[in-house]
Amino acid sequence: MEISSIDINCDLGESYGNFQVGNDAVVFPYLSSCNIACGFHGGDPLTIINTIESAKRYGVTIGAHPSYPDLQGFGRRKLKMPAADLAAAIQYQVGALQALCLKTGMRVRYVKPHGALYNTCFSDMEECRTVVNAIKEMDDQLMFMGLANSLMASVATELDVPFIAEAFADRRYTSDGKLQSRRIAGSVITTPEQAVEQVRQMLLQGTVTTDGPAAFPIEPMSICIHGDNHAAEGILMALDALLTELGIEKKACVSS
Amino acid sequence: MEISSIDINCDLGESYGNFQVGNDAVVFPYLSSCNIACGFHGGDPLTIINTIESAKRYGVTIGAHPSYPDLQGFGRRKLKMPAADLAAAIQYQVGALQALCLKTGMRVRYVKPHGALYNTCFSDMEECRTVVNAIKEMDDQLMFMGLANSLMASVATELDVPFIAEAFADRRYTSDGKLQSRRIAGSVITTPEQAVEQVRQMLLQGTVTTDGPAAFPIEPMSICIHGDNHAAEGILMALDALLTELGIEKKACVSS
Amino acid sequence: MEISSIDINCDLGESYGNFQVGNDAVVFPYLSSCNIACGFHGGDPLTIINTIESAKRYGVTIGAHPSYPDLQGFGRRKLKMPAADLAAAIQYQVGALQALCLKTGMRVRYVKPHGALYNTCFSDMEECRTVVNAIKEMDDQLMFMGLANSLMASVATELDVPFIAEAFADRRYTSDGKLQSRRIAGSVITTPEQAVEQVRQMLLQGTVTTDGPAAFPIEPMSICIHGDNHAAEGILMALDALLTELGIEKKACVSS
Amino acid sequence: MEISSIDINCDLGESYGNFQVGNDAVVFPYLSSCNIACGFHGGDPLTIINTIESAKRYGVTIGAHPSYPDLQGFGRRKLKMPAADLAAAIQYQVGALQALCLKTGMRVRYVKPHGALYNTCFSDMEECRTVVNAIKEMDDQLMFMGLANSLMASVATELDVPFIAEAFADRRYTSDGKLQSRRIAGSVITTPEQAVEQVRQMLLQGTVTTDGPAAFPIEPMSICIHGDNHAAEGILMALDALLTELGIEKKACVSS
Repeated sequence: MEISSIDINCDLGESYGNFQVGNDAVVFPYLSSCNIACGFHGGDPLTIINTIESAKRYGVTIGAHPSYPDLQGFGRRKLKMPAADLAAAIQYQVGALQALCLKTGMRVRYVKPHGALYNTCFSDMEECRTVVNAIKEMDDQLMFMGLANSLMASVATELDVPFIAEAFADRRYTSDGKLQSRRIAGSVITTPEQAVEQVRQMLLQGTVTTDGPAAFPIEPMSICIHGDNHAAEGILMALDALLTELGIEKKACVSS
Repeated sequence: MEISSIDINCDLGESYGNFQVGNDAVVFPYLSSCNIACGFHGGDPLTIINTIESAKRYGVTIGAHPSYPDLQGFGRRKLKMPAADLAAAIQYQVGALQALCLKTGMRVRYVKPHGALYNTCFSDMEECRTVVNAIKEMDDQLMFMGLANSLMASVATELDVPFIAEAFADRRYTSDGKLQSRRIAGSVITTPEQAVEQVRQMLLQGTVTTDGPAAFPIEPMSICIHGDNHAAEGILMALDALLTELGIEKKACVSS
Repeated sequence: MEISSIDINCDLGESYGNFQVGNDAVVFPYLSSCNIACGFHGGDPLTIINTIESAKRYGVTIGAHPSYPDLQGFGRRKLKMPAADLAAAIQYQVGALQALCLKTGMRVRYVKPHGALYNTCFSDMEECRTVVNAIKEMDDQLMFMGLANSLMASVATELDVPFIAEAFADRRYTSDGKLQSRRIAGSVITTPEQAVEQVRQMLLQGTVTTDGPAAFPIEPMSICIHGDNHAAEGILMALDALLTELGIEKKACVSS
Repeated sequence: MEISSIDINCDLGESYGNFQVGNDAVVFPYLSSCNIACGFHGGDPLTIINTIESAKRYGVTIGAHPSYPDLQGFGRRKLKMPAADLAAAIQYQVGALQALCLKTGMRVRYVKPHGALYNTCFSDMEECRTVVNAIKEMDDQLMFMGLANSLMASVATELDVPFIAEAFADRRYTSDGKLQSRRIAGSVITTPEQAVEQVRQMLLQGTVTTDGPAAFPIEPMSICIHGDNHAAEGILMALDALLTELGIEKKACVSS
């Protein structure tokens, strides 16, 4: 494995009116890609527009970050939607973001499901197909971003949608390569040292340490950091140093 | 005044999940244009997509019908939003509809504000400018549909946005050419005879009877019928007969 | 089995602002109990107050009909809420209804979960316990209404909450005594004849025909009719005739 | 003017699921009363329950803090609701809080409208009457908290509802005794020194400095601090010191 460049992505634009979430202004300068909330778990229209403008200013590639419609649960609760409703909900969100991007001279380049929808996508093949088909039907140039070496990758391949394999700098993994639930203590990594350690292992050895005895093979094209992690800026700075040390360029998988 | 064609428009796609509103299937065959709800006062994503597909099937031109965010009040309650929030809310709604139309090979051709936002637009010049500017910024091909001979027409002219002047077959007018509030008994016309009478006068004399002593001058390019009016189908059939009688073609102001 | 009286219940007050659902005015005269929506799947505050006043006028016992927070899905979509959030959501809804009842001199006498929450309660013991405990904690006089001969009955017994066993006049049953999914054609009974036949068998033989070879034992204290069933009034009239024929009194399980 | 005790109140429980607002844990120990959000501008059910429990632990009197239904605008945008809808919305919110309080052995003692509803109450007599009547109809023991020396006081007197006159430590006043709009720079006081200065003048001279040439007479029974003010804790500590210096007891207007 020889990596010359890697993408750094973060979920942004998740504030909702007076309810402020994350630290977008702080993390933007470190990113090559951003996943912008589309209004269903966060992201009121003005926040979305402002986030698109920031992405443009920083030259950051834009992805859509659609969710189940669940503001109260921040999209972190599984909602069992009929497939047609789910597909429509995703197309509505991606479409709204796409239109607001065009106004600013930007484009949505990929889609990354949010929260419980993301988790469902790496564990429920039928629902993952619904999501990927919905994306493809919108715009066959759109890429799908999901968990590296997971069901999400297989479904994208099956449906012939270009896939961006991502791995998490600040989340622990289970032995089968999934994310440990946020409800388990320690599932979120909060020190730059540990986050960098995890990413270094991914980049150099192509594996991640898990909650089981064995490491899991992982070869990410993009590294995700959570903006609401209090250590986000520290982690991002440490990652920059790591990439410099390893001679790896920070670069989006698709230009903005 | 010599009219060779006129548009017939109706607000559609306003159902929300299990909550059914209007009689879209019944009225669609009579329309040349339809104003599709965008999710903020009605119109869940699947309803929107189904409505776009119906419009395509019937060859009906599509307009966006954005609203204040107020599902509980069906967009009929004035919400005092800061201008930047309002502009963003309109662009989000129009954008979502635009993107869902493109997927079906259709386009949003015009924007008609809904409910309380419509009423604000013909009485508050600043807010009307916010709305029209938001539309223009999205897509300078978009037309603005509003109340004939009102502030909405002036603002569209001032901002150089093409205007579709509409008049209502099933609503009473005040002496200054505005719509009588729905809270006043008799403000909604519910018999085909009275509706046709009102439209006949508009088309032949260029005026509408009001609640004052004098008629108000009105020269509509489009006639609006409300789909939730129980007499909607009867009114639409009677209008068809009237247009045939007068030798006026039913035709959208802009092709679908 | 010898029944001297039976309760007839219906879900009411589910309209939401301009979105009208059901035919409350038509069905009220036939009921002994009503389950009033609490705002999370339907039921805006004014609708709730008006429904309470109708219940008072008709002498109908009031139950609370709480739901997952899901207006778009009308509470018919399973939402995986953490137990503490679910308990709080139920107590909020029941509490709001209780307070609005007190204002009118009425009381909430029982709680019947709505839609997907109801379905979860008869298939997921942990979540059913969360619901029943939440009810008990609010007011230990509150009864719990649920599917006869189901997990809901066992949990109520286990937690020492008085249980109202209900059966459905207008829904088909599966071989294990659960409700057939609404997504299966024919799962909703829409003729008075078939509905009365099903109830007659319940009352006389203590069984219900299912989608399997065998009937399922069922001894309801209350019969539920769906108000949004187009045949609701016909079914209710036919049930009245059946009760007269059998000499069974129509009476709520607890006075209003 | 000789004051022996004064109440210190703060708006609390305004977080909504993952969206955290304010610093409730920090300010609670300094309060004698708290105004708890009821779900329409903030305050999901679990947050409400947790806030009630904190109030009990700290012996803080509870008031309801109902709002227009406007989560996106945090209740800070005027919504023109028909009077019957507004009254019902207030009773639903106050009722939900009342019921959740009873469960914990607490009671709602007063009602203070939130945000734009508060502002409307001190400038629109009809709407203020709607609010105060709605409160009175719920429970004639409930007090009404509002802006000292304003229309809110007059309406409470007229309708015979006990009034708690409050003044703001951290907001600037206009020459007619109203709050300066948040959109005007400097309208929010952010240093403990200035806040204490303003309160000292209220308590000793019975006036507040305004944006006009003259001070406005004001004799508060309660002092409000905003919990989302970054200086909240500093202001509260400084107020404690001021009360000690002046020999004034900190005490709610009605016991918890």
